[in-house]
Amino acid sequence: MAAQISSAGPVRIACVQMEPHIGDVAANRAATARFIETAARQGARLIVLPELCNSGYVFHSREEALALAEEIPAGDTCRLWCALAHRLRVYIVAGIAERDGTALYNAAVVIGPDGYVGKYRKLHLWNQENLHFSPGDLGVPVFDTPFGRVGVAVCYDGWFPEVYRMAALQGADLVCVPTNWVPMPDQPPGQHPMAVTLTMASAHSNALFIACADRVGIERGQPFIGGSVIVHCSGWPAAGPASRDDEAIVYADLDLSEARDQRRLTEFNQLLSDRRGDVYGDYQRLTK
Amino acid sequence: MAAQISSAGPVRIACVQMEPHIGDVAANRAATARFIETAARQGARLIVLPELCNSGYVFHSREEALALAEEIPAGDTCRLWCALAHRLRVYIVAGIAERDGTALYNAAVVIGPDGYVGKYRKLHLWNQENLHFSPGDLGVPVFDTPFGRVGVAVCYDGWFPEVYRMAALQGADLVCVPTNWVPMPDQPPGQHPMAVTLTMASAHSNALFIACADRVGIERGQPFIGGSVIVHCSGWPAAGPASRDDEAIVYADLDLSEARDQRRLTEFNQLLSDRRGDVYGDYQRLTK
Repeated sequence: MAAQISSAGPVRIACVQMEPHIGDVAANRAATARFIETAARQGARLIVLPELCNSGYVFHSREEALALAEEIPAGDTCRLWCALAHRLRVYIVAGIAERDGTALYNAAVVIGPDGYVGKYRKLHLWNQENLHFSPGDLGVPVFDTPFGRVGVAVCYDGWFPEVYRMAALQGADLVCVPTNWVPMPDQPPGQHPMAVTLTMASAHSNALFIACADRVGIERGQPFIGGSVIVHCSGWPAAGPASRDDEAIVYADLDLSEARDQRRLTEFNQLLSDRRGDVYGDYQRLTK
Repeated sequence: MAAQISSAGPVRIACVQMEPHIGDVAANRAATARFIETAARQGARLIVLPELCNSGYVFHSREEALALAEEIPAGDTCRLWCALAHRLRVYIVAGIAERDGTALYNAAVVIGPDGYVGKYRKLHLWNQENLHFSPGDLGVPVFDTPFGRVGVAVCYDGWFPEVYRMAALQGADLVCVPTNWVPMPDQPPGQHPMAVTLTMASAHSNALFIACADRVGIERGQPFIGGSVIVHCSGWPAAGPASRDDEAIVYADLDLSEARDQRRLTEFNQLLSDRRGDVYGDYQRLTK
């Protein structure tokens, strides 16, 4: 399960904070291409895009979602991203509405310079997503890249620390999070958005890098909160959070192999081997 | 498993931030009594004290720790706390070095107006604690009180989101955390201590109230960071974090039954039932 990690030092990661527009797949696709080109020109080797960035988020109906979704990797958006990744020699992790027969998934693809790598299907569906999408059925896959092992999670998945734990236990160094964060109630002044706090906590308690690309804008009355952030495996932000309202690209230069060193906390402590699996097992059967 | 929750509204919770002195059990015990008296006079019904507040933290040897530890509940410190809880009609959750035969545990007791309720033994031992203490063998117990169900965790346990999850899945409304937090490297200006961030994240992602009583001071060269905090089940601080250096009592008036409402996020989402136990089970067998 050991990854092949390049010894070339830091790699530039980019999170694209953009505003997809519901239903306008052609325009959304073109916008992703512009952002990917820009990020690559700035030296990014891995580029994360928001959840459902091909389709927009607030569907009126399952039929509308179905009409906007695409097959992975045969659909036009994946084909465009594959061509860009090949030409620009970058990795792309991006949220996409996936159609598989008549089933719909809130998915994310991982694409590299040599083509399609794999996909993730959101495990935890938020609110009315439950009307449109099937819950993910691919677990928490972790993919090898030249700079480290990369897992994927989407938005509300981040409310479940189990997801990051599963990635870390499979040797992930970085988890990429395409997201469409919505406001949480009662955020006091001076605090990070709760989504950022959750991300920092999971980064620290697993010694994982986490790169979150959020959307902005208000869609059919639903506001989104921006705040795209790249969190170091120490748990502190390496770049961002970005603004609440504006499109932007957040960059950080990261040596992903640091995640493995970071897990060794003291002579006596390693974050993952300190887990008390002998105790936790008992609670798996509990449900509420 | 339903708790008996009083309908009397909010209950005042107090976290005592104090400085125990290594080896001076009599003085530490007297100090806890003064803080408990003060908190009760201010209307607190549940009072949390730091980790190892009877003994101090930085032991030179296992022999020193053994000499400072006490039986639960037969030891003098527990007897004092039981008498205070009875006279003041309060609950006390406090960290204590426990001696059980020749075994030592980094433990916490729960004591109520009618006497000893139960104990917890720290599951995850930090650094040289591994030289002195045995790892906890009582799981994550949750206790009924008149104002809600109360779990206990100690310090480094908070680095393991599994602990809070186990408490929540057993119906805990509040987790009390006696702690001796030490500095984490590279904390940037303007950020909460990482320990507070971890607490906020676990409070939010489980809809749990969490009350952390930390110590202050420098003991045999080891600094502690204060920052005692009571976090609302929304994840935002309800009181604190307290200062880094000074003894203090942090108070919050909490209606613990709100934890249960807070878990219902949308028409489609309940934090605990949204867990994908069908997926998480697979990772229990992974070890690193």
